[in-house]
Amino acid sequence: MAKFYGIGVGPGDPELLTLKATRILSIIDVLLIPQTQKDKKGIAYTIMEPFLKEGIELVYIDFPMVADEDAFIQAGKQAAHIITAQTKQGKSSAFVTLGDPSVYSTYGYIVKALEGQVEIETIPGITSFCAAAALANRPLVEKDEILTIVPMNASDERIDAALKVGDAFAFMKIYKREERVANHLTKYDMEEDGILVQRCGFKEAMVHSDVIESLHENKDYLTLVLSRKEEMA
Amino acid sequence: MAKFYGIGVGPGDPELLTLKATRILSIIDVLLIPQTQKDKKGIAYTIMEPFLKEGIELVYIDFPMVADEDAFIQAGKQAAHIITAQTKQGKSSAFVTLGDPSVYSTYGYIVKALEGQVEIETIPGITSFCAAAALANRPLVEKDEILTIVPMNASDERIDAALKVGDAFAFMKIYKREERVANHLTKYDMEEDGILVQRCGFKEAMVHSDVIESLHENKDYLTLVLSRKEEMA
Repeated sequence: MAKFYGIGVGPGDPELLTLKATRILSIIDVLLIPQTQKDKKGIAYTIMEPFLKEGIELVYIDFPMVADEDAFIQAGKQAAHIITAQTKQGKSSAFVTLGDPSVYSTYGYIVKALEGQVEIETIPGITSFCAAAALANRPLVEKDEILTIVPMNASDERIDAALKVGDAFAFMKIYKREERVANHLTKYDMEEDGILVQRCGFKEAMVHSDVIESLHENKDYLTLVLSRKEEMA
Repeated sequence: MAKFYGIGVGPGDPELLTLKATRILSIIDVLLIPQTQKDKKGIAYTIMEPFLKEGIELVYIDFPMVADEDAFIQAGKQAAHIITAQTKQGKSSAFVTLGDPSVYSTYGYIVKALEGQVEIETIPGITSFCAAAALANRPLVEKDEILTIVPMNASDERIDAALKVGDAFAFMKIYKREERVANHLTKYDMEEDGILVQRCGFKEAMVHSDVIESLHENKDYLTLVLSRKEEMA
């Protein structure tokens, strides 16, 4: 029975693919690739290419790079149309996301547009924030601490409210918002124990413990900041 | 060069191990196993057993099941002592956690106790909350939503403050605190879009969309609740 798969390929290192992801990648007939996210497309494709079966059909879909809700909904519908047609022909297809498909991925728009028309299976992936913590050999959260994942495209007001009540934080979508992250960290005295992970998940990844300075110097799409209120013992 | 590894084996399904985790499991000489967490030990060991090399040395350490900070620190020191001795003999060792080593794991106590005496490498794992979302084919967070991981051993006051400001939530450490989770969900009108995932990460895992009823009926150590304030489109 043909299925549609959403596959998380992890943060970048091909070794952080799960056994399940590699198995599914090797059996799918059709791979959907977001065309306009040129950077991400290249990365995700490079990670999974060695596992794909020979002669796999690549179908490009127009997923917008900018945050335009209507365009995302349209792209989801376009993808769903292709997936439904492929499934009817008995072909299994997949959409692949960096990290995990449930964390800030456009995959959700495809699932919604499919409305149960085909069988769907989602394969979770290693998140960038878990990979960043692992790289630094440090905990994200311990004991009764609350972990908050803060996307920097949220308003400063909402971010501030979240920082006020949480214990440990992972800041995502930082690119071109580095100064705002630095301001938030300073306000809550979180510079000391904060780290910036550059090129998180890749061979050239680097952990910077001088987080404020690094936020000013390292402007990169795959940058992530971890911080916490209470200093680690 | 002998190393110490912290390995996340994911939520339960052996197929959710990463390629890296399976490779490291196959080369280590010594495996540290927390003795008192009988339940967890059994689970993690069952997941990784097929990948371990023949004749691997198993060393049991006394990690307490109850939340006793001093006992955890002691256990971390005991483990660090063993690891340092093994490393000096040229043997690589590992401590394995269900899910990811940076999320509510006792692994942090070992890292702290080692104080840089040996080379450490942490291998991230699939978290239970990503696995739960994948199982339900639903997003954890989208767009500019703030994701909060709520451990139910935190106080109701702190949990309430976090629920007030966040958008999407994963409730962990639910076992024997099911009624409190139900109360929090009801207060913030999150019953409708909430789900309970029972035996998350295992073959027999089940997604329950009647979250309040399920919280009353399904008392299980490996249960997790996902909820969100805004209904999904």
